[in-house]
Amino acid sequence: MSSGKVLVAQGGGPTAVINQSLVGVVLEARRFREVRRVYGARHGVRGIVGEDFVDLTQETSHNLELVAGTPSSALGSTRDKPDRAYCHEIFKVLQAHEIEHFFYIGGNDSSDTVRIVSEEAHKAGYPLRTIHIPKTIDNDLVGSDHTPGYPSAARFVAQAFAGANLDNAALPGVYVGVVMGRHAGFLTAASALGKKFPDDGPHLIYLPERVFELERFLADVKAMHAKHGRCVVAVSEGIHDASGQPILAQLAKDLEHDAHGNVQLSGSGALADLLCEEIRSKLGLKRVRGDTFGYLQRSFIGCTSDVDQREAREVGEKAVQFAMWGDRDGSVAIKRTGFYSVDYELLPLAMVAGKTRTMEDHFIAENGTDITDAFRLYLRPLLGSGMPDAFRLRTHQVPKVLRP
Amino acid sequence: MSSGKVLVAQGGGPTAVINQSLVGVVLEARRFREVRRVYGARHGVRGIVGEDFVDLTQETSHNLELVAGTPSSALGSTRDKPDRAYCHEIFKVLQAHEIEHFFYIGGNDSSDTVRIVSEEAHKAGYPLRTIHIPKTIDNDLVGSDHTPGYPSAARFVAQAFAGANLDNAALPGVYVGVVMGRHAGFLTAASALGKKFPDDGPHLIYLPERVFELERFLADVKAMHAKHGRCVVAVSEGIHDASGQPILAQLAKDLEHDAHGNVQLSGSGALADLLCEEIRSKLGLKRVRGDTFGYLQRSFIGCTSDVDQREAREVGEKAVQFAMWGDRDGSVAIKRTGFYSVDYELLPLAMVAGKTRTMEDHFIAENGTDITDAFRLYLRPLLGSGMPDAFRLRTHQVPKVLRP
Repeated sequence: MSSGKVLVAQGGGPTAVINQSLVGVVLEARRFREVRRVYGARHGVRGIVGEDFVDLTQETSHNLELVAGTPSSALGSTRDKPDRAYCHEIFKVLQAHEIEHFFYIGGNDSSDTVRIVSEEAHKAGYPLRTIHIPKTIDNDLVGSDHTPGYPSAARFVAQAFAGANLDNAALPGVYVGVVMGRHAGFLTAASALGKKFPDDGPHLIYLPERVFELERFLADVKAMHAKHGRCVVAVSEGIHDASGQPILAQLAKDLEHDAHGNVQLSGSGALADLLCEEIRSKLGLKRVRGDTFGYLQRSFIGCTSDVDQREAREVGEKAVQFAMWGDRDGSVAIKRTGFYSVDYELLPLAMVAGKTRTMEDHFIAENGTDITDAFRLYLRPLLGSGMPDAFRLRTHQVPKVLRP
Repeated sequence: MSSGKVLVAQGGGPTAVINQSLVGVVLEARRFREVRRVYGARHGVRGIVGEDFVDLTQETSHNLELVAGTPSSALGSTRDKPDRAYCHEIFKVLQAHEIEHFFYIGGNDSSDTVRIVSEEAHKAGYPLRTIHIPKTIDNDLVGSDHTPGYPSAARFVAQAFAGANLDNAALPGVYVGVVMGRHAGFLTAASALGKKFPDDGPHLIYLPERVFELERFLADVKAMHAKHGRCVVAVSEGIHDASGQPILAQLAKDLEHDAHGNVQLSGSGALADLLCEEIRSKLGLKRVRGDTFGYLQRSFIGCTSDVDQREAREVGEKAVQFAMWGDRDGSVAIKRTGFYSVDYELLPLAMVAGKTRTMEDHFIAENGTDITDAFRLYLRPLLGSGMPDAFRLRTHQVPKVLRP
């Protein structure tokens, strides 16, 4: 007889809409009469091996709806990246608790975990259905038009640059804003969606998809400052030299590495400060300011895309439907079907797991420091409704009297 | 015969609602039949001495309304702090253009400029009415219940910490958020308004009104981390030691000074990075992250308080009414008359000019690292309607099977 037990967990960096996916899973699973229990694991895979489960069948649908609108992972998350032995532990716990459906909301590392757990269950002949539900502000999952979480983070970045541009226009100088994204520049590129007038910033955009040369960067800033009397720059934290070494690594002395062996890029203002110092000392410009958007860009409460909210909810819902009505494991993907509409499909886990998407060439301008209209068209509908707009005074110059 | 000419300008750091005050002046002035021209000076006092005026009488009221809702100074701003000679230049230009009413929107430095220009006009026997219109995200003007611009920045800071707290709860560690405010801790204190549940962060708040001791800071963080398994800290950029030296100055090698002779505190992530490094090295804690809210907290588009919007508009309107119906120069102040309602009064310029308000003692908790309910009651109505709220899953723990 079937246990009717479902487990859901959240992994990796939180997003503003990751709880929509969680609640999509819980409410949809609770609609199926064969489902008796919906468990949530606290802090992702770490909570699974520790058997730290909460019973979401005993949560009101009203509170679930309110949690859905709250940013960051309500179940808690983890940076653990399980190897096969770790995944075997996960499988043993799932088996012990008679879990029949496992939903893991996360990025490409999480999809790889789902893939291995799926294999372990298959080897053991245990009837487990495992589905990966996509989320990442980096938009770097292969096979999806875009990933839930990205549109809201992109909206934050666009609004931040729209404001920073206005600030910089009022008190001219150089402004450098550093945006998250180790390998993929999608989030940094969103800065361009804050532009309205032709002379608005960001005037320069540096993506990890292109090699960063300090000398060229300084020449670019100098030229833009000469042209506009000011310069707003968007920089990805993942910018690197021709050898692939992060620009930050060239300068920071004590580098922190995360559990995946990567250099810690976020949670420090070092890159912005360094670039500002270069501009100040090499170009002799005054009023050079750097901001690092840091954790605000992924967790700020009250700046989300309604399109992102509804899609994040739907990937959770669809995951349950794919699990209940379908016959295979997989990763839920968003497919664009109109301008603007989407549908969902279930991709084989091996197609998504551990792979990284970066910005396609046709999204990046020839000069490497701007984005194309194709990218503008791609991103705009994702930002959702009610995007704030910036307006200017029109200039009716008054003739001078003292020094005409 | 009267020229009927009015001049308005914006000075100092931009705010999210400073254009409401500008538009309040312009639209209200245009209602008076004796007013023939409303000029705006580009980039504050600098634009006045350069006779860089735009004619706002030729701007549509529709576009003015749209500009009113746009953050940052639409006329441009300046960091120039005029001395008497500079103010004399300002007066000469006002005289040459037959300006009869001068409105300057700015902080305490700007109010001092207004005071000197007023004196210059008086000495010369020139009939000039000068009014200072308050704005500052620091909330440090003497004589006002609060200043326009502060509520919207406070709302940004509260929302940022509400989100950062959720992020930190999902991936536990230490999070340090650095907030603007050289002498006044009002904006940093707003971080506490992002708290909802008793164990929510910020768990520690460091204000410039209290002496900062590194050893005590580290002990506080250690204790909070032991208690909650994580720790969210709000720090004012203006924290200083017992001698008044900024903590940042103790560490940064190349200090930039602004035109007022102050050490440049904003536009760098140095303070957050330094504090994080101290926590990492001295307490041996992992996952220590620092964010500096930087320019986002004053210029982010799409995060404003509706109460702030309407009050910023009214101080502009009232400034014109005080100038037209009154008989003296002054500084417009907000007076709280109910929970929640306000009225406006005109204070003598000498009462406001060049003075700095800091947080009153009854707003700061005994231990120096928290705020009081009195402050919570003071700030909450200013944040306006539609504040986003954070919700949690309730815990229904599932019994363990493998390791009960």
